[in-house]
Amino acid sequence: MWEQLYEKIDGLYERMVEDRRYLHQHPELSFHEKETAKYIENRYDELGIPYKSNIGGYGIVATLEGGKPGKTVALRADFDALPIQEENDVPYKSKVDGVMHACGHDGHTASLLAVAEAALQFKEELPGTLVFLHQPAEEYAPGGAKPMIDEGALEGVDAVFGTHLWASTPLNKIETTKGPFMAGADRFTITFKGKGGHGALPQQTKDPVVMAGQAIVELQQVVSRRINPLQPAVLSIGKIEGGNAFNVIPDTTSLTGTVRILDKEVQDEVIDEMHKILKGITISYDADYELDYVKGYPPVVNHAKEAEYYLENAEEIPGVIGYEEVDPIMGGEDFAYYLEERPGAFFFTGAQIEGHAYPHHHPKFDFDERALSTAAKALIHGYKKYQEDHK
Amino acid sequence: MWEQLYEKIDGLYERMVEDRRYLHQHPELSFHEKETAKYIENRYDELGIPYKSNIGGYGIVATLEGGKPGKTVALRADFDALPIQEENDVPYKSKVDGVMHACGHDGHTASLLAVAEAALQFKEELPGTLVFLHQPAEEYAPGGAKPMIDEGALEGVDAVFGTHLWASTPLNKIETTKGPFMAGADRFTITFKGKGGHGALPQQTKDPVVMAGQAIVELQQVVSRRINPLQPAVLSIGKIEGGNAFNVIPDTTSLTGTVRILDKEVQDEVIDEMHKILKGITISYDADYELDYVKGYPPVVNHAKEAEYYLENAEEIPGVIGYEEVDPIMGGEDFAYYLEERPGAFFFTGAQIEGHAYPHHHPKFDFDERALSTAAKALIHGYKKYQEDHK
Amino acid sequence: MWEQLYEKIDGLYERMVEDRRYLHQHPELSFHEKETAKYIENRYDELGIPYKSNIGGYGIVATLEGGKPGKTVALRADFDALPIQEENDVPYKSKVDGVMHACGHDGHTASLLAVAEAALQFKEELPGTLVFLHQPAEEYAPGGAKPMIDEGALEGVDAVFGTHLWASTPLNKIETTKGPFMAGADRFTITFKGKGGHGALPQQTKDPVVMAGQAIVELQQVVSRRINPLQPAVLSIGKIEGGNAFNVIPDTTSLTGTVRILDKEVQDEVIDEMHKILKGITISYDADYELDYVKGYPPVVNHAKEAEYYLENAEEIPGVIGYEEVDPIMGGEDFAYYLEERPGAFFFTGAQIEGHAYPHHHPKFDFDERALSTAAKALIHGYKKYQEDHK
Amino acid sequence: MWEQLYEKIDGLYERMVEDRRYLHQHPELSFHEKETAKYIENRYDELGIPYKSNIGGYGIVATLEGGKPGKTVALRADFDALPIQEENDVPYKSKVDGVMHACGHDGHTASLLAVAEAALQFKEELPGTLVFLHQPAEEYAPGGAKPMIDEGALEGVDAVFGTHLWASTPLNKIETTKGPFMAGADRFTITFKGKGGHGALPQQTKDPVVMAGQAIVELQQVVSRRINPLQPAVLSIGKIEGGNAFNVIPDTTSLTGTVRILDKEVQDEVIDEMHKILKGITISYDADYELDYVKGYPPVVNHAKEAEYYLENAEEIPGVIGYEEVDPIMGGEDFAYYLEERPGAFFFTGAQIEGHAYPHHHPKFDFDERALSTAAKALIHGYKKYQEDHK
Repeated sequence: MWEQLYEKIDGLYERMVEDRRYLHQHPELSFHEKETAKYIENRYDELGIPYKSNIGGYGIVATLEGGKPGKTVALRADFDALPIQEENDVPYKSKVDGVMHACGHDGHTASLLAVAEAALQFKEELPGTLVFLHQPAEEYAPGGAKPMIDEGALEGVDAVFGTHLWASTPLNKIETTKGPFMAGADRFTITFKGKGGHGALPQQTKDPVVMAGQAIVELQQVVSRRINPLQPAVLSIGKIEGGNAFNVIPDTTSLTGTVRILDKEVQDEVIDEMHKILKGITISYDADYELDYVKGYPPVVNHAKEAEYYLENAEEIPGVIGYEEVDPIMGGEDFAYYLEERPGAFFFTGAQIEGHAYPHHHPKFDFDERALSTAAKALIHGYKKYQEDHK
Repeated sequence: MWEQLYEKIDGLYERMVEDRRYLHQHPELSFHEKETAKYIENRYDELGIPYKSNIGGYGIVATLEGGKPGKTVALRADFDALPIQEENDVPYKSKVDGVMHACGHDGHTASLLAVAEAALQFKEELPGTLVFLHQPAEEYAPGGAKPMIDEGALEGVDAVFGTHLWASTPLNKIETTKGPFMAGADRFTITFKGKGGHGALPQQTKDPVVMAGQAIVELQQVVSRRINPLQPAVLSIGKIEGGNAFNVIPDTTSLTGTVRILDKEVQDEVIDEMHKILKGITISYDADYELDYVKGYPPVVNHAKEAEYYLENAEEIPGVIGYEEVDPIMGGEDFAYYLEERPGAFFFTGAQIEGHAYPHHHPKFDFDERALSTAAKALIHGYKKYQEDHK
Repeated sequence: MWEQLYEKIDGLYERMVEDRRYLHQHPELSFHEKETAKYIENRYDELGIPYKSNIGGYGIVATLEGGKPGKTVALRADFDALPIQEENDVPYKSKVDGVMHACGHDGHTASLLAVAEAALQFKEELPGTLVFLHQPAEEYAPGGAKPMIDEGALEGVDAVFGTHLWASTPLNKIETTKGPFMAGADRFTITFKGKGGHGALPQQTKDPVVMAGQAIVELQQVVSRRINPLQPAVLSIGKIEGGNAFNVIPDTTSLTGTVRILDKEVQDEVIDEMHKILKGITISYDADYELDYVKGYPPVVNHAKEAEYYLENAEEIPGVIGYEEVDPIMGGEDFAYYLEERPGAFFFTGAQIEGHAYPHHHPKFDFDERALSTAAKALIHGYKKYQEDHK
Repeated sequence: MWEQLYEKIDGLYERMVEDRRYLHQHPELSFHEKETAKYIENRYDELGIPYKSNIGGYGIVATLEGGKPGKTVALRADFDALPIQEENDVPYKSKVDGVMHACGHDGHTASLLAVAEAALQFKEELPGTLVFLHQPAEEYAPGGAKPMIDEGALEGVDAVFGTHLWASTPLNKIETTKGPFMAGADRFTITFKGKGGHGALPQQTKDPVVMAGQAIVELQQVVSRRINPLQPAVLSIGKIEGGNAFNVIPDTTSLTGTVRILDKEVQDEVIDEMHKILKGITISYDADYELDYVKGYPPVVNHAKEAEYYLENAEEIPGVIGYEEVDPIMGGEDFAYYLEERPGAFFFTGAQIEGHAYPHHHPKFDFDERALSTAAKALIHGYKKYQEDHK
């Protein structure tokens, strides 16, 4: 049966390309994916697979009960786009000005729809239940995964799998890792509230520019001295802003940056240590600061057993040319929330176009559509392995 | 004769107020003072005092030859206004939107015109020659003094005096100092040219934000460790700018600031030491920097003998209520250029309005007009003393 | 046979305690372990097991050929002591002033001798060959492992195993990890060569104290910004020294510290980045620096397959109460060199005395001697598993 | 009479050299100048000039009442030596191991004794009273001047003068300045009390080395941003000490340094700002610090009128080849205390040996003895001018 199912998926390749290209031409921003959701619902209507819509926003949860006993396994695809003006010159170019599927979520959706259509044909032979999670708003914290879970998307689900088409990984290669795979990505803004004045009279001011300078230098110690050196972490400042005249010391200066961590405990330590450093700096000036720290998605921590399906067992997936246990990626993903609730794994499906090196979120981003079949087969492979392991 | 001359000046008080208020209502920005210059020229036409116009821009040099032998002494008044919207509710409020005499140059002009008118009456008895320097563009470097000198405004001049009505000095009190009185005020912009990248991958970048942080901290050493501690100096950063996304390390970051010094040799040391520090920082990152350092006006360095006229000898001026040798002021003035060429002195004439504490360059700046007579008498006093000393 | 061998080891417990206590009372410093080596050689003489002595210093390589075909597996124990004055009040207290077995190497030696004695009894039944590496000078880089290897200690050896009695791990628990287990530990001294002078005239000096201050702060960036954040690293300064009068700026200041890494490539990056930072700092002062960087032992990187013998397979060892795959330890070990040459693993054998919390290298360090049997059985277990895997 | 008095002093040149060389060979450390005091007392005994001994330690106050009415003027010479091993190869080399007159106090004493001897001859013609202050312990705060004053050394004294033989000023040139002439010189030790630990585990420590590094860098802001830039100040660290092993982070690190200021109000500001900075740093580590700040001598602030005796009037002194109003010297002197109590002035008497460039406090320090006469005449000149001004 599995052989046939994989073949069926391959047979749906044209359909996947069609779905993907339609979605690519009609991208919608996070939290605004109304038409995209409708498109997906129509496809399930056509298939006759029951689903619930408007789960945690525009989320859709479709369910296919197999004819045999088994576990309930969810497969997830996200479907939001980005506020980027496409610069590709392709027939399926985005028709929406300033909005683009520059991350491959159009492909994720197309692949998952093909899984549903293929699996439907083998309904009676399938063990357990397949759940299709079509998730909105992955690109913008707080994301769509959390509200879908809060509204019950994982009820009855035993395990969950998801993939990301990855444009810098060779076509049809699988990459993932046991344990932390993608980082928690937080955002912060520090505002130093000093007291401005004439540039010639620094002694009458509480100079927030100097406070900011010290902070930039001292915050390096959070990573280098104040947390466990075995715990990867990054603290970077992407934006600094203060003052508008060469000879006037401003009242305030602000630093905006990001923290990346692979362990949630470290996150709280980082915030604590940032506060200590900022408190120390501002106390030395009788000044104040504000730290606006927005926790982003938690780290994506793969469960070891389920991650193995995409490492040691990856070559069982037809079409996969290899696998690699890679170092964690410092970018974030709200798939993290599912893995906090259920066993499972998230993995990359290589989709590199040869000689086309544009990264995700680039106006010229694109991927090799031949990866769509592989992604679909790899998703159903997780379901298959999980059933085998839990007979 | 001097007694009568001082009385004549007092008698012109209404005229000074009238001139000042007219100019106050019709302010013009630096380098654009066409109508102001015409107004002054008209006054000299009325008086019949010969003058040259368009000297170094809109500068005017009027000359009154006395009937007795003696030295040639120049008195200077500046006449440009500032890009500030007046917020005073007075009958003589500026009629030009966004432009205001917020520094008292209207008063300087009125006083000097009164000196000319009064001196004219005693022409035959006056020793030597009086030169009236009406100068544009003091507020904006490179200023109007330098081009006036370059076009010969000091030819034949033996000494030069000037005053600033000072709103935070008690009415009719004189303040100045021997030697450095006002600071050199320079402007600089440092641009760090690094290499941006993803905030999560600092090791792949040359982070200009961190370079800027280090620079802010280390540039403090220019003043504290790298120049003679007996030489006052200030280096302040008024503006910092870099990046525009929380998670993207930018390619460049810039710092804009000011340097104040009281000695021109120190200025070159400061620039040298800034380069050393910036070079060190950028070398440690394989990065580059640009230091755009604009030397402003040099320090106003009073000549000791001539400054004494406004210290020990200040009480000889009718109406002056006292004098003080004050610490140097960290602000700048292009009167500095005259004192680099000729002996002379620059002094403050107290013009404080009781209970009205707005500083120079403030939208509510104003001064006590009774200081106009005192400023005029104090200017002619410099001429008088210089003639006495050089008989 | 293996059951009996394990029992035999347990039967040698008194002998192990006796050996250990004798060695404990007669400690010798690294590279000076002449009598200790003689003691070990005597024991092999007694047993009649052939050995080579003075291998790479006082190293001993004893060989026991089994009667059955198989692989050659080496087990290693180090035997040097530390320059520490023992503060334990025990009957077997060190008799040498200022020298102490404060790290458990006495125990390692006793355990390995028991393995030899026990194995000898089952010589005919043993597969392959057992090699006993008694190594001097583990405590002091460049260590004793490297010269022993250079003189052929691993010739013909297929795999190598070693253990460390660990005083903070519960008695008879095994801890290790696949991949990097112990850090590379380097030592460095930075000397800033400035120009001293009077504390009141900083501008005439090149102040090495300020250079050192900047270096302490900026070297933090090596770890936090200049290497891959996924690569654990530590750079700490343990000693700073400069000057001897409050009012005299010294000519030089020095910083002595350590770098820990788990990957040898990172080591070179760290050194490069240190140079860049130090170069930048000293260039900004027209000064010089010297970086004396002594690469210590490389990281101990366990081979995954062999490490599994002490993780998943650890419970096969009689007496072992459990195992844990722990985070890497930031301390170093010259066992690293063996693992660069041959497959194998290094692991901790828990030897915690309840309620006795003194760490390794402490004057009150001690361990629970009941761990000696466990260590011995765990060592032979590595040999056993390796033979089974390579039949 | 004055001419003759100056000649008499010149006539005592051999005597001065003899006294100076005797003292040079028999130096005594600050607060231990018992024999030196006895030597001086013997000289006054020989002369028959009455004196009080043991004033504020080994201080001596001799008094010579003139026969004419006038003011009481004190002249001061200090007489302690330094803990330095002389490296000069001269016949009068120090006979005391490790102790040396490396600052010229031997010469000061010789000169003042000559003044006394010469003045005695003209006793009847002298106006007012001459007081000879022979002061111990100038080199070591809290110094000898303060206790001498506390025990009445200035009772009845109207003015006070003192000189320092200065080895870097051309022979017989006088240097001084009106107002602040020598700096206040304070000493401080900062101890950071952190929490030590393993160099590989910085996150478990409160690293005092890093705190010290930050402090070195940030304390620069005291001078550059936190006090009036017109107020000269220096803060230098001469000694840094912490830790003794490369891989152990110490519990404490200390910084010892000096602060120089020319105004006592600034001193308190400096201390306040140091506390703010240290508090900020340690708060950021949950650590503590101790600031042991020892106020040294206050600034030597010459009284303008009396300083003029050594500027405009210096050429009246026979043998003086010129004078210069110099910038303040950042070194300290406890002559400051006399000038806080009475009008007077302190000045340098040039004593440079051509081609011998060793500074004060150097093991090869020496001075041109021909300056002894000039110093003596310059001292009595102060007395003379003061009497003339206060007839």
